[in-house]
Amino acid sequence: MDAHALAELVTANRILAREGIVDAFGHVSIRHPGQADRYCLSRARAPECIEGADIMEFALDGTPIGPRGRKPYAERYIHGAIYEARPDVRAVVHTHSPGIIPFGVTAVPLRPLMHMCASMGTEVPIWDSRTAFGDTNLLVTSAAMGRDLAAALGQRPVALMRGHGAVVAGASLREVVFNAIYLELNANLQQRAATLGEIRFLSDGEVRAILATRSSFTFERAWEYWCQRAGQPYDERPMEGPLSKC
Amino acid sequence: MDAHALAELVTANRILAREGIVDAFGHVSIRHPGQADRYCLSRARAPECIEGADIMEFALDGTPIGPRGRKPYAERYIHGAIYEARPDVRAVVHTHSPGIIPFGVTAVPLRPLMHMCASMGTEVPIWDSRTAFGDTNLLVTSAAMGRDLAAALGQRPVALMRGHGAVVAGASLREVVFNAIYLELNANLQQRAATLGEIRFLSDGEVRAILATRSSFTFERAWEYWCQRAGQPYDERPMEGPLSKC
Amino acid sequence: MDAHALAELVTANRILAREGIVDAFGHVSIRHPGQADRYCLSRARAPECIEGADIMEFALDGTPIGPRGRKPYAERYIHGAIYEARPDVRAVVHTHSPGIIPFGVTAVPLRPLMHMCASMGTEVPIWDSRTAFGDTNLLVTSAAMGRDLAAALGQRPVALMRGHGAVVAGASLREVVFNAIYLELNANLQQRAATLGEIRFLSDGEVRAILATRSSFTFERAWEYWCQRAGQPYDERPMEGPLSKC
Amino acid sequence: MDAHALAELVTANRILAREGIVDAFGHVSIRHPGQADRYCLSRARAPECIEGADIMEFALDGTPIGPRGRKPYAERYIHGAIYEARPDVRAVVHTHSPGIIPFGVTAVPLRPLMHMCASMGTEVPIWDSRTAFGDTNLLVTSAAMGRDLAAALGQRPVALMRGHGAVVAGASLREVVFNAIYLELNANLQQRAATLGEIRFLSDGEVRAILATRSSFTFERAWEYWCQRAGQPYDERPMEGPLSKC
Repeated sequence: MDAHALAELVTANRILAREGIVDAFGHVSIRHPGQADRYCLSRARAPECIEGADIMEFALDGTPIGPRGRKPYAERYIHGAIYEARPDVRAVVHTHSPGIIPFGVTAVPLRPLMHMCASMGTEVPIWDSRTAFGDTNLLVTSAAMGRDLAAALGQRPVALMRGHGAVVAGASLREVVFNAIYLELNANLQQRAATLGEIRFLSDGEVRAILATRSSFTFERAWEYWCQRAGQPYDERPMEGPLSKC
Repeated sequence: MDAHALAELVTANRILAREGIVDAFGHVSIRHPGQADRYCLSRARAPECIEGADIMEFALDGTPIGPRGRKPYAERYIHGAIYEARPDVRAVVHTHSPGIIPFGVTAVPLRPLMHMCASMGTEVPIWDSRTAFGDTNLLVTSAAMGRDLAAALGQRPVALMRGHGAVVAGASLREVVFNAIYLELNANLQQRAATLGEIRFLSDGEVRAILATRSSFTFERAWEYWCQRAGQPYDERPMEGPLSKC
Repeated sequence: MDAHALAELVTANRILAREGIVDAFGHVSIRHPGQADRYCLSRARAPECIEGADIMEFALDGTPIGPRGRKPYAERYIHGAIYEARPDVRAVVHTHSPGIIPFGVTAVPLRPLMHMCASMGTEVPIWDSRTAFGDTNLLVTSAAMGRDLAAALGQRPVALMRGHGAVVAGASLREVVFNAIYLELNANLQQRAATLGEIRFLSDGEVRAILATRSSFTFERAWEYWCQRAGQPYDERPMEGPLSKC
Repeated sequence: MDAHALAELVTANRILAREGIVDAFGHVSIRHPGQADRYCLSRARAPECIEGADIMEFALDGTPIGPRGRKPYAERYIHGAIYEARPDVRAVVHTHSPGIIPFGVTAVPLRPLMHMCASMGTEVPIWDSRTAFGDTNLLVTSAAMGRDLAAALGQRPVALMRGHGAVVAGASLREVVFNAIYLELNANLQQRAATLGEIRFLSDGEVRAILATRSSFTFERAWEYWCQRAGQPYDERPMEGPLSKC
């Protein structure tokens, strides 16, 4: 893993912490830039505290490569299962951000109502660990649970996890960070709007138009801003290639 | 463009970011102090990051004057169209501030309920890009869209944009910053009050009395405070002349 | 006015700003420690920015004593009228804190539901400038308006002002700052609790018991904390004497 | 009391303040590590301001041991009564955190809806000081009141106090701090979710599974993060032994 990718991943952790998307828990990974059958993820540590030396490599089944005594996240299986099922995915966020939790435990579907938030797509599924695994501690601590979650996600960018949080998958690190932040915003806005009355959501055509026309520059502009807020250096070079269109 | 105006515009950007009115997106412009057929607006950058060298000049149709390689905001047409239609307007804010979004996607009209917020006027129209332009990415990326929005705004100080945000137009930079901040406050207060029951809004006569009696000192006092919070130097001299009365 | 009182008043301004009770607007005064027919209040400036040299003296009718070119608050009449009507009052806060505004524009009475908030008393009246003065800009800019507000306040510690804010009056500076902060908290809590269902408020007997048994130490302990948060030095000596019991 | 325990208790105070669980009021204690019939608690001071020299020792009946002129919290009886009734308890938090207050004054039971919050257990009782003691100032200022509260708590980890706050009891300092923070989060999430519709809470089986499988590492990871946010040094050694399972 090259120094640039590693620095970007540390920065992503700090941004998600600064923006209130993760607290002591939650994590973000990238597919290894040089080896598609590996992913990079911090050792088990709060995102706000993560440094370069914390970043580990994993096989897609969750086996640490060269752990050097570092303790991995118990829920790393989330990441491997999504990379395994989705060759288009190069980055994954797992979050407990507060605004989205209510939409995982009630019958109100989370839907985009603002243009910045269209990247969640027109339908956000809810994965419930209980359906296939019964009464558990809700943590995704096996490849089997990870794969079940990845199946619920399907080809979509976001899945909620009942009583737990969400996963966000995308074509680049900056995209998933962006999507995780605006997913939380949309949840908060939808919550508020719901108290006022019926909501006019984005039409499916609008969501498609937003996804079809967005450029990576949108992510760059936000990334510079979030770097500044998180006290992290801003590197103009994004790490990955094309944008996801789904 | 003189150094004072340029510094004021940078400060306005930083204030709007500090007060949570803009995040990585949203922008604020002034009509060029010396040339009424031009306006000044940053290159495409998050307001929190903007420096003097980022400020560009544009013709009212959105053509950059001396861009020197700087990338303009795709939505600069919002600003030019309003300056074109409204000779009284000397500054424009485009915002996505969270509190106002619910009022753009529900049937509840945003109305002033507190004296500080009367500058939004008694009626706030909602512009929906879909009415004239169908399913788009909602961005105002042409002069035609900008003019349609400006027509919806009419002679008013504020228009909401469905699923997107708002525009605020006024006679001075300090006035539009003030209005954008208190617009957001009113939206948040109205949201809360709506959960309690029927709201007694300001009467039309009260709104008119507030607009008729307010002095630029109100804006100065707030500007000093916001400069301090944003870590920007406070310049006692406001940039522009008379107050808008509508 | 002695240096201790002056420093305390500056600190009170900074605390109210830091705790979100005032923004660019709102003010806090004390009755002059040595001359009961005068009060001390900053020149017209945002509380966060106020320094010792900004503190002015006023006669109870609002006439500045030795203004030395300093511009007074247009609403200083609030303070003078309350000191005039209430010999027991030694400090007054005028605030626009957001949580209380909805209770001034709806029919839901603000009532204490938590022990820290009992100092608002069992009944909080709403003063509406429109009742006696018709359509105005809502500002209390004359002795007549100030006296009308003071009459609505009566012997109570708090009155809401419709579409505007509130006044808090008490026996000491630390008491009114305390009361203004916990008034806002109660409003926020009552707002939330109201969405859950019927609220069990403090009984009148409990409110009376809290007022009868509280000691100035409660205010001291909070004052030290708020000084630390506001970056102000903490002076252990409170400025005034006995506690108000109503 | 050894230096390590003392430093941990100071850090716990600062964390609770930084995370908004306590303001000028609220407190946290530990059972004395070497003498099970004593507990350690700060003198009466805001948690944000507490330093090592503020930590006092008390007998379980609330008698200060070597007070050296330091003024104790009037409500220290809360702590002694719980240590007396619950040999398994090694740390207690008393909080007024805002999110939980509405659940103490309405008929909506607070219940865990998110995995991080399961440590509150499946049932949270509400202690009302009025039931046994009538109209008081609501403060727990005697051993009799403390014991009545401890009886309401029973063998549970959390009890709400009507119009006042809550107590959190657990097997270690890091556990009670963790539980107090996630109790507040759950209250906020439940409040929001309730506005959307019927909530799917964690099942009792899930709560049991979470309590049965959690490891002290969960607390360590959060503790490091909270230390960093509070500007406190992080000591990797937790102070106490086994985890509570109830």
